[in-house]
Amino acid sequence: MNAVAATVEAVADAAGRHVRALMTSLEQRLAELAADHGEVLARHGGDTIAAGGKRLRPLVVFVAAGGIPGDGGRALVRAAAAVELVHSATLVHDDILDAADLRRGRPTVVASAGRAMATATGDLLFSRAFAELARNERRDEVRALSVASTALARGELLQRAEAFDVGVTLERYLRRCELKTAALFQAACELGALEGGADETRVGELAAFGRRIGLAFQLLDDVLDVSGPPGRTGKRRGADLLDGTVTLPLILARERSDDVAAFDLREIGGPAEAEALCDAIEATGAAEDARRLALEMVNEASATLPPLPTAQLHALHLIADGVVDRYA
Amino acid sequence: MNAVAATVEAVADAAGRHVRALMTSLEQRLAELAADHGEVLARHGGDTIAAGGKRLRPLVVFVAAGGIPGDGGRALVRAAAAVELVHSATLVHDDILDAADLRRGRPTVVASAGRAMATATGDLLFSRAFAELARNERRDEVRALSVASTALARGELLQRAEAFDVGVTLERYLRRCELKTAALFQAACELGALEGGADETRVGELAAFGRRIGLAFQLLDDVLDVSGPPGRTGKRRGADLLDGTVTLPLILARERSDDVAAFDLREIGGPAEAEALCDAIEATGAAEDARRLALEMVNEASATLPPLPTAQLHALHLIADGVVDRYA
Repeated sequence: MNAVAATVEAVADAAGRHVRALMTSLEQRLAELAADHGEVLARHGGDTIAAGGKRLRPLVVFVAAGGIPGDGGRALVRAAAAVELVHSATLVHDDILDAADLRRGRPTVVASAGRAMATATGDLLFSRAFAELARNERRDEVRALSVASTALARGELLQRAEAFDVGVTLERYLRRCELKTAALFQAACELGALEGGADETRVGELAAFGRRIGLAFQLLDDVLDVSGPPGRTGKRRGADLLDGTVTLPLILARERSDDVAAFDLREIGGPAEAEALCDAIEATGAAEDARRLALEMVNEASATLPPLPTAQLHALHLIADGVVDRYA
Repeated sequence: MNAVAATVEAVADAAGRHVRALMTSLEQRLAELAADHGEVLARHGGDTIAAGGKRLRPLVVFVAAGGIPGDGGRALVRAAAAVELVHSATLVHDDILDAADLRRGRPTVVASAGRAMATATGDLLFSRAFAELARNERRDEVRALSVASTALARGELLQRAEAFDVGVTLERYLRRCELKTAALFQAACELGALEGGADETRVGELAAFGRRIGLAFQLLDDVLDVSGPPGRTGKRRGADLLDGTVTLPLILARERSDDVAAFDLREIGGPAEAEALCDAIEATGAAEDARRLALEMVNEASATLPPLPTAQLHALHLIADGVVDRYA
């Protein structure tokens, strides 16, 4: 079990039995959605949903709700499924752009069925997400998800537009992380809070928590790309650098080392050179400082949580800690 | 002015001055949405929206509404914009898969910015569509658009899954056309009818009209691919055949000619051979019969319209005729 999966387990324990019941319902609903596309043609969409990630975002939805709403949680489960579907859609499309062969240990849609099927599969998952959420008949929920979904696409556009541009500022980098990662964590919190019957103030407070841990999540992802260790991340260091993605460790390191600052990402010849650049970045202490910034964000996220029932608060703290523990 | 643009003009004249006002508002709203993504990174999404098609689907939304609703038509314009955004999103993604260089006489996003930017741009347009429609705060509208958007993706998946499979049945072909084209015309009618205050029965009747003309639209598109003439369509005949897309003219021709039936689409060496196959298909009368089937659908669509105000009915008939006139 990896660190995120362990977090999901610990949180489910802490939040109470109802979260386990909801997670079970979520899997059932996702399986139904997969079966609903049972025609051969939609197999890849079904596979992608069924293959299962760690369901971290749905977990956030459930914990933010703070309990099982009066309808037995059916609407809450649909909201969580919608968030997971949007997340899955972006993964399928990202895998096309990265020409990735494996995801969660299985062949990616693009690897097994080609770019055309993968593009359409991602579109299908996006559409299913909104179809699923529309069943809740809540305009505020559709709005929250569409804002997040727009942000994801804008973040992706920004990343591609800024590729190989080592002059990217810290501010611009953080904006990109907010768009491509934090927005969906924020929406997960909002959707959970809305279904849990939270008032506007409480929804806003939980949304801020989601945004902060989402931002920290992305920062730590970027640190892991530089620092590994590969034994834990399952991939070689420097993959982002090879793609030309300028992340926080590089931004900080460029301020501290003329050698790193002089480096042109376009000239990286292959994985070994990318790893050498990772070493140079780490030598400046930039990766460690980036990690520290992420930890501060997570602490801030936990510290600014409003008064909530003890079990819910504990579960939210565990989620925040889990974002950090991926690094341990 | 091409045939569809002429239809848009004629319909706007017939439906009354309010439709022209709505079309102007639509362009303003689309321009605002484009400007809203004014950062360099989102330029392509903005370009795609602003570049402008013939806005046939928004026109259908407006005519189905039958007038300007009490809010001055703001919600109606948002619904029309959402339909156009979903349509644009699918075009951007289709152009990636087809590696198309030009669309509406301008470079495609994939041609000018690459596959990565085009994938993200399409995702952005999808997301913006739902964000725009969510502002109407109507669950029935979000449901209608998400059903259509899901259908589009499924239709695309089906087309890719069935590529080069000459054994595709008529039933399966029609199902694919319903998904990839008719569903969005149906949604356009539903959204217009809902904003126009139609009751459930009337919404259903207009939805059926939309589905029928959408189906006919796709059938005629497929006939045009075989019959051209290139001088009107602006592209060489047989492009679908080159892509391995099995359409109605081929399905019918295979029943009538052993030579056509024996043809393996994978063995088409290039455009000249594809054109030769088009000639063989036409020689069986299959293209003409496919066109006749489409005309019957359009007539059926017009004949089964419910009693409606004269100007609205006239405009709907013009839209139906316009679908056919693309062939003339």
